[in-house]
Amino acid sequence: MPSYKAPVRDMQFLLHEVLGFEDLQSFEAFSEVDRDLADAVLEQSSKFAEEVLAPLNIVGDHEGCTRHDDGSVTTPTGFKDAFKQMTENGWTGLSLDPEYGGQGMPGMLGIAASEMWSSANMAFAMYPGLTGGAIKAIHTGGSPEQKQTYLPKMIAGEWTGTMNLTEPHCGTDLGLLKTKAVPNGDGSYKISGQKIFISAGEHDMSDNIIHLVLARIEGAPAGTKGISLFIVPKFKLDENGNPGERNLVSCGSIEEKMGIHGNSTCVMNYDEAEGYLIGEENKGLRVMFVMMNEARIGVGLQGVGQSEVAYQNAVAYAKDRLQGRSLAGPKEADKPADPIIVHPDVRRMLMETKAFNEAGRALLYWAAKQEDVEKHSTDEKLVEKCDDYLGLLTPVVKGYLTDMSMKTTIDCQQIFGGHGFIEEWGMSQFVRDNRIALIYEGANGVQALDLVGRKLARNGGRALMTLNSEIAEFLKENKETEGLSEFMDGLSGAQKKLTEATMWLMQNGMSDPNNAGAGSVDYMHMMGLSILAYMWAQMAVVAQAAIDNGSNEDFYPNKLITGRYFMLRMLPMLDAHLAKIKTGAAPVMALDEAAF
Amino acid sequence: MPSYKAPVRDMQFLLHEVLGFEDLQSFEAFSEVDRDLADAVLEQSSKFAEEVLAPLNIVGDHEGCTRHDDGSVTTPTGFKDAFKQMTENGWTGLSLDPEYGGQGMPGMLGIAASEMWSSANMAFAMYPGLTGGAIKAIHTGGSPEQKQTYLPKMIAGEWTGTMNLTEPHCGTDLGLLKTKAVPNGDGSYKISGQKIFISAGEHDMSDNIIHLVLARIEGAPAGTKGISLFIVPKFKLDENGNPGERNLVSCGSIEEKMGIHGNSTCVMNYDEAEGYLIGEENKGLRVMFVMMNEARIGVGLQGVGQSEVAYQNAVAYAKDRLQGRSLAGPKEADKPADPIIVHPDVRRMLMETKAFNEAGRALLYWAAKQEDVEKHSTDEKLVEKCDDYLGLLTPVVKGYLTDMSMKTTIDCQQIFGGHGFIEEWGMSQFVRDNRIALIYEGANGVQALDLVGRKLARNGGRALMTLNSEIAEFLKENKETEGLSEFMDGLSGAQKKLTEATMWLMQNGMSDPNNAGAGSVDYMHMMGLSILAYMWAQMAVVAQAAIDNGSNEDFYPNKLITGRYFMLRMLPMLDAHLAKIKTGAAPVMALDEAAF
Repeated sequence: MPSYKAPVRDMQFLLHEVLGFEDLQSFEAFSEVDRDLADAVLEQSSKFAEEVLAPLNIVGDHEGCTRHDDGSVTTPTGFKDAFKQMTENGWTGLSLDPEYGGQGMPGMLGIAASEMWSSANMAFAMYPGLTGGAIKAIHTGGSPEQKQTYLPKMIAGEWTGTMNLTEPHCGTDLGLLKTKAVPNGDGSYKISGQKIFISAGEHDMSDNIIHLVLARIEGAPAGTKGISLFIVPKFKLDENGNPGERNLVSCGSIEEKMGIHGNSTCVMNYDEAEGYLIGEENKGLRVMFVMMNEARIGVGLQGVGQSEVAYQNAVAYAKDRLQGRSLAGPKEADKPADPIIVHPDVRRMLMETKAFNEAGRALLYWAAKQEDVEKHSTDEKLVEKCDDYLGLLTPVVKGYLTDMSMKTTIDCQQIFGGHGFIEEWGMSQFVRDNRIALIYEGANGVQALDLVGRKLARNGGRALMTLNSEIAEFLKENKETEGLSEFMDGLSGAQKKLTEATMWLMQNGMSDPNNAGAGSVDYMHMMGLSILAYMWAQMAVVAQAAIDNGSNEDFYPNKLITGRYFMLRMLPMLDAHLAKIKTGAAPVMALDEAAF
Repeated sequence: MPSYKAPVRDMQFLLHEVLGFEDLQSFEAFSEVDRDLADAVLEQSSKFAEEVLAPLNIVGDHEGCTRHDDGSVTTPTGFKDAFKQMTENGWTGLSLDPEYGGQGMPGMLGIAASEMWSSANMAFAMYPGLTGGAIKAIHTGGSPEQKQTYLPKMIAGEWTGTMNLTEPHCGTDLGLLKTKAVPNGDGSYKISGQKIFISAGEHDMSDNIIHLVLARIEGAPAGTKGISLFIVPKFKLDENGNPGERNLVSCGSIEEKMGIHGNSTCVMNYDEAEGYLIGEENKGLRVMFVMMNEARIGVGLQGVGQSEVAYQNAVAYAKDRLQGRSLAGPKEADKPADPIIVHPDVRRMLMETKAFNEAGRALLYWAAKQEDVEKHSTDEKLVEKCDDYLGLLTPVVKGYLTDMSMKTTIDCQQIFGGHGFIEEWGMSQFVRDNRIALIYEGANGVQALDLVGRKLARNGGRALMTLNSEIAEFLKENKETEGLSEFMDGLSGAQKKLTEATMWLMQNGMSDPNNAGAGSVDYMHMMGLSILAYMWAQMAVVAQAAIDNGSNEDFYPNKLITGRYFMLRMLPMLDAHLAKIKTGAAPVMALDEAAF
């Protein structure tokens, strides 16, 4: 059976040594969150992930969820108990608003804990994850009364939440949605329609399920300008705010999926269910997108989380499995064969995964810091910068990190040979679970289009210009540091190539928007490679300084070795992407539709 | 439910217009196999694939195989009947030796038919596929009596066959194998041991199962020099050569796998089972490798087959699914949205898959022709060339084509958005079934090492030199042809870069073999890209000539469009691979084993 060990040392390195977690103490809200407290949280969270969630991962995959004739859904053995433990220990509210019972920790710490849970058991972690999204939406758009009614119970994990966007005929294109809301005259609405792919839509883990539902109020404008957001609780609340009468929403079926079997993916039928408007009429997408952006970071996190656990198990196998001899002569001559980690191609796959995981994690925590600062700083310029960075990089976090985690989880599975294909070894599950991350919360191609078509040009390209200046400054400061030339050269080269791609898109995307569309995924990958190069360069500076300061922890030279792999063996992809972008739309669009 | 339509026009184009199928008529054995006959075979085979096999594909995935307490295995509903039809129509012997009841068609035609079956139902096609491998082994290494005893029944499909190599502790490294053979004194042996991952190891589709088993005769040398090959029938034969007494071999369990659920992957236990030596003692691997090479081509075929069926279904979905509007303005303004095939990134994925499939198929059929010529020509020089080409390119066919088909099947699944993740749409199955192709018959990393460590240098590098001369000649002949500049430039550039990589490996692989190992997969991809560029250039020459000769079939200009996509948007990967290779072993090998 696969296992998981939270990479706590790596997390501490990022939080405390590279990304300045302690900076957040300057904000009133986090003044007491010091290093010791953060480390205690990491420690406790890792135990919960390793001991409670990880053993249930393969159980969830194997059993899946079961829908009964009455529409109720049973989650896999152990899930309900684990969720109870999670709520009792306050994990569900870790970085949520203390005003409603949350623990008020920084998002930067919350994301580290979430990574652990997602690595240990992605399907399970989605239940609190989706609830977090629903909390965010109510927190952002709800009335004071709605917040008071729903948030404390949801933050405590007594109730869970869902997001209901997709309908059978509309996913990406929400303007097509048909679910209908008819005013009851008392401020509530009757919601009718069918929603599909609703993660955690129905289950047995909480006392109530708070569905957030996009619907169109009768007579609303067509398209995206006529969409409103509603709260539809599974059980309507009685006068004391407790779950009472059953609302007219039910799970029609659960989907048979490639992965995340432990999460119940439901078809939800709304049949004049009672719903309550969040925010203004026809402005539902605005609230939904606040939530979606956070969810997209969460999906990038799932990718890195699966890549990490796949890596750990592949390393264990590669050290244990004896097969063949090192090309450079036997390494363990007393054994019948060498462990397969001696083979360069096995190492190549491990190094690639390791180099990706460590920088991907850095990007995620860095993004979480931007969000913490944005939320708590009073420095307008700084807030603007954080918002710019998040806007620009959210599609990269979602799209690039999960494209890459697909590649790395497959590589880690490959290391197992035939055993990788057998379910009991668990590697197939990591690949299958990870697969959804490229699709939901906006398919990766849609992320790329969001990046190239919207985020890049917003405010005259301010976000990328600011980031480029920051990196230029960083390079200036560090370019002479001994031992770091590969990092500075790599980062500097990546910036130049990314700029070349950006210029090309700007010059050619205007005349034919398909030029931008045809190169969008390549561009997203270029930005992903560049930003990970920046993360590696920052980690390298810290590691080199520790060595120069006399540290004898192997951790630091090993960081440099891993980072050099990224610079030398992963950055060359930039040239391929750039060349593809510059071929423009013609090769992609030339074929007549009928000829496919 | 997904569907499949055999790409007969494309197959005809390759056989008759590009690759000179009719050349084979110059051989006595194929003198009557003309174009009409070949086309009739394609036609009939496509019907069988489309109407009988394709509808059973998802059934096989869903039901899987069932092992009963007595060790017997039931295949999914419909498989047994389909196999009966297959044998009754003579399909199992299509390109096999007429001396033993085969139909004696060229392998080049056989591979086209096999592609159809594999696209339609990969798990099913493995039953006759494995039998073909066992037939090949007996045909190559068996005594005249063994051939007479086993081949007619196996070719007729009355009996099926298996290949038993892997043991729990040994897959790639066959030198470690422990299965034991003890002479009975009458020429037969008692075979004891456990074999795992035995495809089609036990099932209900045939009257007997002929296991080919690698084992070590008592007292044989250690390592690969002490391995012999045995025939172990499930039922021993009575005096009339019919299945009689049950042999002491049984299926201990069947594996739960990520894909190919319709194929029974068995743990086979040999408990003093009666076995008969094929060929000489301790020379078993020699025979096994003849069979393995053919099997590796078959695995490359599986990759292209899954990529083709995934492509077809993705095209249908992309034309049908309405979502969003074209970046260049609405294409179907009367509908609520445009079909998603208008989006450049959807087209990018379809074009990439199409451009890969068509050239991958060309490479497979070209390889099959080399084998036909090698087998039947009396021109020694020509036979040598074909053998060289097959030796050099078999690892590329297996490793590169399946690495690529993993990417393309995932892309095709991605086009379905959330529906791609739901099993009933069938796209997940194509990805899951394809996944094994990167692993079995020698994992792709092992293919790359075989290429770089053995095949490249064999006979002083003769194979690649001959191929390079052939391509240089082709470029000389065609470089001035109007309309083909992208093809000739692309091919010529690919050749130069591949040569640079080859030189680098030669110069640096001697001093440190890990330099070769670390770049081996990148090199395999470079050779794959280069040889597909050659295939595309040849197809382009034919297509352009047809246009120049006044053809008004859209097929030809569309070929050129598809090929240009390959040249412009896929060949840029060469530069990334080359740069990675040239970083050498250091970045890959530097990290201490303990630091992973």
